[in-house]
Amino acid sequence: MKLNVLDVTLRDGSHSVRHSFTVEQVRAAAKGLNASGVPYFEVSHGDGLGGSSLQYGLSKTDELKLIEAAVSECTTSQVSVLLLPGIGTKEDLQSAASLGVKMARIATHVTEADIGAQHIELARSLGLKTVGFLMMSHMAPVEKIVEQAKLFESYGAEIVYVTDSAGAMLPKDVTERISALRQALQCEIGFHAHNNLSMALANTIAAIKAGATYVDGSMRALGAGAGNTQTEVMAAVLERLGYETGIDLYNLIDTANDVIAPLMQQPQEITGSSLILGYAGVYSSFLLHAQNAAEQFGIDERDILMKVGEMKAVGGQEDLIYEVAQNLASKREVVP
Amino acid sequence: MKLNVLDVTLRDGSHSVRHSFTVEQVRAAAKGLNASGVPYFEVSHGDGLGGSSLQYGLSKTDELKLIEAAVSECTTSQVSVLLLPGIGTKEDLQSAASLGVKMARIATHVTEADIGAQHIELARSLGLKTVGFLMMSHMAPVEKIVEQAKLFESYGAEIVYVTDSAGAMLPKDVTERISALRQALQCEIGFHAHNNLSMALANTIAAIKAGATYVDGSMRALGAGAGNTQTEVMAAVLERLGYETGIDLYNLIDTANDVIAPLMQQPQEITGSSLILGYAGVYSSFLLHAQNAAEQFGIDERDILMKVGEMKAVGGQEDLIYEVAQNLASKREVVP
Repeated sequence: MKLNVLDVTLRDGSHSVRHSFTVEQVRAAAKGLNASGVPYFEVSHGDGLGGSSLQYGLSKTDELKLIEAAVSECTTSQVSVLLLPGIGTKEDLQSAASLGVKMARIATHVTEADIGAQHIELARSLGLKTVGFLMMSHMAPVEKIVEQAKLFESYGAEIVYVTDSAGAMLPKDVTERISALRQALQCEIGFHAHNNLSMALANTIAAIKAGATYVDGSMRALGAGAGNTQTEVMAAVLERLGYETGIDLYNLIDTANDVIAPLMQQPQEITGSSLILGYAGVYSSFLLHAQNAAEQFGIDERDILMKVGEMKAVGGQEDLIYEVAQNLASKREVVP
Repeated sequence: MKLNVLDVTLRDGSHSVRHSFTVEQVRAAAKGLNASGVPYFEVSHGDGLGGSSLQYGLSKTDELKLIEAAVSECTTSQVSVLLLPGIGTKEDLQSAASLGVKMARIATHVTEADIGAQHIELARSLGLKTVGFLMMSHMAPVEKIVEQAKLFESYGAEIVYVTDSAGAMLPKDVTERISALRQALQCEIGFHAHNNLSMALANTIAAIKAGATYVDGSMRALGAGAGNTQTEVMAAVLERLGYETGIDLYNLIDTANDVIAPLMQQPQEITGSSLILGYAGVYSSFLLHAQNAAEQFGIDERDILMKVGEMKAVGGQEDLIYEVAQNLASKREVVP
């Protein structure tokens, strides 16, 4: 079976290098990905087009310059961009398309596909391969994901992704979600993993077995939290399992070794913090707040993250972290 | 279901830190493992008792001193030692037992259980919990592993391990091996993984589902090649899956963060080399020889490793690497 591998090193990896990618780095990585036969790769700020800001982190280099450099290296690979409505704009998408981008992935929280309707329609009208990207998919029950995926499909998405942003899923979670989508949708299905529970590749394989035909990875696992499915490892394992990816493994390993490894600012390990983020199933942006609140109230940051995870808090609800911390601290004081 | 987690940070991790563990480091790690309720942990040179040598790497500190320090910190955890017949001796095992070690794991190549017979018998006579440890288990067909495991059981082993030394297995490989052993043996079954293909934890879960009740891990994945199943991540995921391990997760994470992370000499990542070792299914000790031979004959080290893997070369057959390299180089010259 033919699978479509999409490498996100130059987008999700942006988080891990604090948005410091240079034109030279992107050019070298793009050249390697293209030569390796990776069919798609994504170039954007970690939080998508227009993400460069004080809130999400300023990019060292204008992402349009990075996209332009990437496109210029491609003879067979196609460049994708990510866009979160509310962060990126329709103008950003038009600019990217004019640079030769061939795919747009419109990303919303798993329960908010409707805010992506206009962007999906625009991407289609620009002639881009168009993807609906359901973030934090572990937080919604299967029926909700099916409902939201159908919305994306109804807007014109050609592929809908289940995105395990927090690296919180285990294979059975993936299987039930992807299987339900495969039954409910006509369009293709994708899966994007994070490795916080060390299950990124196992989850990706579960997704493929359940019907996903687009799978994301990043070289050296470079990405937010504990990183993504490691593209070069995935390519090797998929080959062992008998799937066709069209990827030249040695070329991809060389690119990971020679281009990506030297630019990493810290190893992409599963630290205590990234483990707890996956275990609690919360946004990585919650971590710093939890650490601050833990210090302020003299409690364990992990208790806060676990509680916030139970409450299914979402991005934007950072205030809740301090409330939870205060509650935990006051409860503790009651017990002598 | 109750599972027995065995932490190998202070033994397999010895490879990763070039056998430089100090008494203070071992004491701190042992204290943390004991406080975390990890039932067993192993302390030995990376290549087992008596491994300190020019060939296998000299230990900075006498392993008996490290074992003594570890035992002295234990109130509930029990200390294990690894012994490879031919490297360690019966005297080494007696010395370890006299220091208060409670478990001995006798490790042989997957086809050579018979060389462990006397050591298994000795370990039993010393009152130790006794394990037969079948290394490079990916190299033998299922029937061969069953035959060898039965030998270990007949010598008196109370647990037989399937050991994926090269990190070359995928879950179906694990399932078929452990299931066959579960049918054929009376004793308990263990599984030891390496993460070269990013599947260590997924393989460990497959092993448990097939009947393994002893599972190895190391904190921060510290171990040979791409490292082991990460103990603290395994503890979190097993809890999510409803298995009892008796482990205090926060305490274990603190030990990984505060004791192990600071002593790591390089990140425990899946590099291009460790990926190829797992993909080719060869001993990590072959890597340096393959690199030397590749340089000498002007070919790609990966081609050598893949070929040597196909030929199912084992430790001791390092000469074969140079023959393979010469053959590959001469073949290449024929083609214009």
